[in-house]
Amino acid sequence: MSDVSVSPSPVLSSMNALWQARYGTPPPATPLPESPVARSLMTHRSVRRFSPTPLPDGVLEAAVATAQSAPTSCNLQAWSVVAVHDAARRARLAKLAGDQEFITQAPLFLVWIADLSRLEQVGRAQGRELPGLDCLDTFMASVMDATLAAQNAAAAFESYGLGTVYVGAVRNHPEAFATELGLPPRAVAISGMSVGYPDRKHPTGIRPRLPQSTVLHTERYDPAAANDPATIAAYDQRLHAARVSQGLPARDWTASVLARMGDVAALHGREHLPRSLRSLGFVLGQE
Amino acid sequence: MSDVSVSPSPVLSSMNALWQARYGTPPPATPLPESPVARSLMTHRSVRRFSPTPLPDGVLEAAVATAQSAPTSCNLQAWSVVAVHDAARRARLAKLAGDQEFITQAPLFLVWIADLSRLEQVGRAQGRELPGLDCLDTFMASVMDATLAAQNAAAAFESYGLGTVYVGAVRNHPEAFATELGLPPRAVAISGMSVGYPDRKHPTGIRPRLPQSTVLHTERYDPAAANDPATIAAYDQRLHAARVSQGLPARDWTASVLARMGDVAALHGREHLPRSLRSLGFVLGQE
Repeated sequence: MSDVSVSPSPVLSSMNALWQARYGTPPPATPLPESPVARSLMTHRSVRRFSPTPLPDGVLEAAVATAQSAPTSCNLQAWSVVAVHDAARRARLAKLAGDQEFITQAPLFLVWIADLSRLEQVGRAQGRELPGLDCLDTFMASVMDATLAAQNAAAAFESYGLGTVYVGAVRNHPEAFATELGLPPRAVAISGMSVGYPDRKHPTGIRPRLPQSTVLHTERYDPAAANDPATIAAYDQRLHAARVSQGLPARDWTASVLARMGDVAALHGREHLPRSLRSLGFVLGQE
Repeated sequence: MSDVSVSPSPVLSSMNALWQARYGTPPPATPLPESPVARSLMTHRSVRRFSPTPLPDGVLEAAVATAQSAPTSCNLQAWSVVAVHDAARRARLAKLAGDQEFITQAPLFLVWIADLSRLEQVGRAQGRELPGLDCLDTFMASVMDATLAAQNAAAAFESYGLGTVYVGAVRNHPEAFATELGLPPRAVAISGMSVGYPDRKHPTGIRPRLPQSTVLHTERYDPAAANDPATIAAYDQRLHAARVSQGLPARDWTASVLARMGDVAALHGREHLPRSLRSLGFVLGQE
């Protein structure tokens, strides 16, 4: 497992080795069909230490082309992305997003925007009110659009040997983010993404996940499988061991769930998202 | 462009050809760096006509492994997926999801679930209340988790030569979906995904998107670029022409935005998402 978890090259590992690293168990008896795309996706690890080397020309445009090739609800394309290169601006955004150093370290910080403003402008140009924009479902569709786009871009960046990490802490202070980035009404930063070459001196390991029996259900949801105490306990142990072997603070999954969800103060401002969204011009309506 | 849009093999096209198909303009002067992953992502088209051929063994497990390899907010893994193979159940779900025939046609229908129930059970097993679960931001994080997972799976399926299409209409009747799939409280279907081999007799073309100048901003959001009337008009023309050449009903982008957002009835039930989510046990709170 340690060979896989520090492998510098995403495409050298087999699906079986990647399965073993992700789940800590041998792969299923049925062979996993190989694909360079699946291998690259399975190799993902969030990188939090970057080299200052800039991205090669053309990589950002290619990644945004993959992002725009992602599905989008009803082709509404209700998202945007702001590419922040400027070091001073990255430093200001880092302060707003949990003081995370890698935002200043990596040469590129992308801010993914759930964006209903462009649609509102389309209506305005035609002299039409668009009440659909005021529905919670439409906001949710724009969040999903932005997320599909972001994940395609992340996969593309990683295929070029770059590292990425999502930054949910852009939602700690959505209004301040909107001001800094000049967002119009009905646009909100839903996730950030630092992009750069991983610092080879500090490789990141693959993070273990819950077994498939916990998340993949056949025909109907099986609560007993989803919540099996022995399975959760085994995962707690495995995650704890993996974190220790990767030099991270010892902590199991149950403890991190309780820490994150047991006190709204752990959300660092995100608990006020309804208020923030309203102040940014969103209506999350239709009871 | 027509060569690209009916290409049966995702990996044969160059990045340049795929750019041309997606944007209708020559690629940037800076060469786009090639990558099999980026090419596969750029080749995406939503498939709505399927062959009945079942998926090869191991493909679903591999795709779910890529889904679980996606980033997840604070490693909470707040998502699940239900794999529906049974034809009768697929037919019932198709009725609930806008009567879309491809759901019955494709051999596999995946239902992606924003799932806070597993976390609630973790708290219950430890005798702990988890007030963080009651925050809108946490629901949104679970929607994003499920979406990141789904998109990795879609990319993996497509890399095996399978076709996919997302089905947002699972949100037309979320309560009925939950009943049919036996979902626990605090779990909701946020998107469906039909998976199967594309019907070669009815190939699907690449759908044009807005130019990058509309969605990609540098340093700060540029409303003039996002809403440039000439750019939107040109895209309207291009989308219209592409739809006609692909045998789809003639319609431009502006018209489809107005049709979808101009009347909440066009949401087919999704306008009642707040009520549905509450009835499924979600609290979207913290003002």
